[in-house]
Amino acid sequence: MDNIFPVEIEKAYRLLNVGGTTLVSAKCDGVCDVMPATWACPLDVLPCKATVVVDSSHFTRKLIDKSGMFALQLPTVGILRETMALGSVSKNDDPEKVEKSGAELFYMDGFDIPLVKGCAGWMIFKRVPEPHNEQTYDLLIGECLGAWADARVFKNGHWKFESAPSGLRTLHYVAGGNFYAIGDAISV
Amino acid sequence: MDNIFPVEIEKAYRLLNVGGTTLVSAKCDGVCDVMPATWACPLDVLPCKATVVVDSSHFTRKLIDKSGMFALQLPTVGILRETMALGSVSKNDDPEKVEKSGAELFYMDGFDIPLVKGCAGWMIFKRVPEPHNEQTYDLLIGECLGAWADARVFKNGHWKFESAPSGLRTLHYVAGGNFYAIGDAISV
Repeated sequence: MDNIFPVEIEKAYRLLNVGGTTLVSAKCDGVCDVMPATWACPLDVLPCKATVVVDSSHFTRKLIDKSGMFALQLPTVGILRETMALGSVSKNDDPEKVEKSGAELFYMDGFDIPLVKGCAGWMIFKRVPEPHNEQTYDLLIGECLGAWADARVFKNGHWKFESAPSGLRTLHYVAGGNFYAIGDAISV
Repeated sequence: MDNIFPVEIEKAYRLLNVGGTTLVSAKCDGVCDVMPATWACPLDVLPCKATVVVDSSHFTRKLIDKSGMFALQLPTVGILRETMALGSVSKNDDPEKVEKSGAELFYMDGFDIPLVKGCAGWMIFKRVPEPHNEQTYDLLIGECLGAWADARVFKNGHWKFESAPSGLRTLHYVAGGNFYAIGDAISV
């Protein structure tokens, strides 16, 4: 995969810091699913941990519960249509959902979790079992085992939106199919 | 306060959905503090709940633990300097931290929690006690009791960044004093 490079694990939280919508993917027994999740958030820097809310009704959740693994990745303006498609249909209703979405999948060496091409960054997590949070709040905690980014837009621990192609900007969801792209760099 | 109107509670999660950095404020026994927290995230739509990570070393955390209440609010480009100042000094070290930051505080009727002028939206939460999460992860859960927004930028449950003054754009934190403002509206 062109442009994809590992992210130092102690800086991986910065992929999630800007608050973009994520795609959650998981796989178990050869069956995979991918769904958008806006409610994802860093939880710790090192070991790198994150939270994500995935309702128990979702097909992806069942795969996470069984496999104990999931990925969070940051879809971009360039794959808005695929991101919307992955959120419009449940694999509970259409087993071909992922194929029909147009999303192209790939794998990183050593991890049997499908990742989506065209994202700005990718993080693979091992579930940290927390039955109370999972059952009461559908809140999952994961510890990051590996992170990668498209070096055109995230390099040396910093986002490069201002110099990257505009199609690599992260998506920030409101509701009803309405997103904002991340905007201009601001500093004091 | 001009332009500040209540947000329907079932749409309040949308204030946090776009992933902006927050300011957390709390007050106990007449003492208040405000600090930035990037790791804040919706947890449920109705009742509206959210999570926020607030390290146990922070002065603000002690106020939350004692009072059982906190606010999350969305600072904007227009108060970047005040937001940075609130994150640069701990009230553990300087009791005048909030006053020196330049942040102007105000109150909503019925709630003794200081809110920061110039934010795009404000949410007041009652802590949902979860000792394991609080002690293990510094992860707090709150149930939203009231939400308000600057109607120039959030109205009828929708963000209006494209028509609002640019100073009202939300701030999205990377690290080291570097933020991005929210950008353009994107839809399929």
